[in-house]
Amino acid sequence: MSLLVMRIGIIGSGDVGRALGRGLVGRGHDVKIGSRSPHSEKLKNWVKETGGKTSTGTFAEASAHGELIILATLGQATMEAIDHSGPKNLEGKIVVDVTNPLDFSKGPAPGLFVGLTDSLGEMVQRKVPRAKVVKCFNTVPNSRMVDPKLPEGGAEMLICGNDSEAKRRVVAVLNELGWTGAIDIGGIESSRWLEALVPLWARVGMALGTWDHVFRVVRPS
Amino acid sequence: MSLLVMRIGIIGSGDVGRALGRGLVGRGHDVKIGSRSPHSEKLKNWVKETGGKTSTGTFAEASAHGELIILATLGQATMEAIDHSGPKNLEGKIVVDVTNPLDFSKGPAPGLFVGLTDSLGEMVQRKVPRAKVVKCFNTVPNSRMVDPKLPEGGAEMLICGNDSEAKRRVVAVLNELGWTGAIDIGGIESSRWLEALVPLWARVGMALGTWDHVFRVVRPS
Repeated sequence: MSLLVMRIGIIGSGDVGRALGRGLVGRGHDVKIGSRSPHSEKLKNWVKETGGKTSTGTFAEASAHGELIILATLGQATMEAIDHSGPKNLEGKIVVDVTNPLDFSKGPAPGLFVGLTDSLGEMVQRKVPRAKVVKCFNTVPNSRMVDPKLPEGGAEMLICGNDSEAKRRVVAVLNELGWTGAIDIGGIESSRWLEALVPLWARVGMALGTWDHVFRVVRPS
Repeated sequence: MSLLVMRIGIIGSGDVGRALGRGLVGRGHDVKIGSRSPHSEKLKNWVKETGGKTSTGTFAEASAHGELIILATLGQATMEAIDHSGPKNLEGKIVVDVTNPLDFSKGPAPGLFVGLTDSLGEMVQRKVPRAKVVKCFNTVPNSRMVDPKLPEGGAEMLICGNDSEAKRRVVAVLNELGWTGAIDIGGIESSRWLEALVPLWARVGMALGTWDHVFRVVRPS
């Protein structure tokens, strides 16, 4: 896998998948975005706008295409999307898990449907044990995933996962996308706490009237 | 209740209670810190060091003393500490709840003993229904609670609680202690997400080798 040009498969064509795809195509990567409706007008426009090596396909086609996979589905749809992708297409690959197990059943301020003794990151890792799942990007809005431009300087992503080499590769991708680096909080079970940040992020957004805010770790000066 | 000089009762004489007490005495308030061992050498030294209107007592004495109460006990000890304080001593008062329901039974990286459909903030509010519980300070280390001095400028505390006037008063106290303001994320049930930030904070601390870091909300520029 070259860090210069990679084949990347994105599972999910919502705002998150399209934003990350646009950023990665812009860095020269060969991106296939997987969707239930790969020929939709929305995706045709996205291919036209992004230019570069951009294509669309089914979940299975995107997964087969990618050396690196980005999982960018709605939380509730994630397990089924992996079924459609064909778990074999993910084995041995880095799977960047951007999903959040948000539960909107109680109103606009979300909870989590996994509780605190499991996480969607762990569910993905259990479903495809031979994939190298790295939880990443799930704590920031799609508007900040590429070129985050945080006014105070450095931008560090919170990540976790079981495979150190996979995390190192993901940090290289983060660097390409304008992030200073990452804070690695451990194995994939730490996804519980990265995912639990998102209902707080949503409540802060409701309080401030913005969806473009981020949590930044300020170290002691 | 004067904003200039208040009688403040602090339940709990650990690092958090002593740090907040020191800060509040420094602003001229009349602070009684409540402890199971009010005559310990540790507390005698604290009274001597802090100067000002400082005293120690039992949980019940500190609670009776305060117009405003700060609850700064270990998570597991919180309910029993309220029993010892005498819930009647808290009724009608603002109770600033700094506690966290941390569970260290699985190792040094904590979980929460309340799950995600309850919180210690809600448990405190249910135990003393006529207190005005405001969750505050629980997301920052005790070294940053007073004069947080965040290098990038403004410092906003994340708070929640059911009583708007109580939250307004707590923001005034925050301002006295050097905070720019607060982000109010709603009713006391939002404590679930303020408390869930703390296991993430701990894991970031383990990754960075510091306990003095904070999460800061960066708004869009």
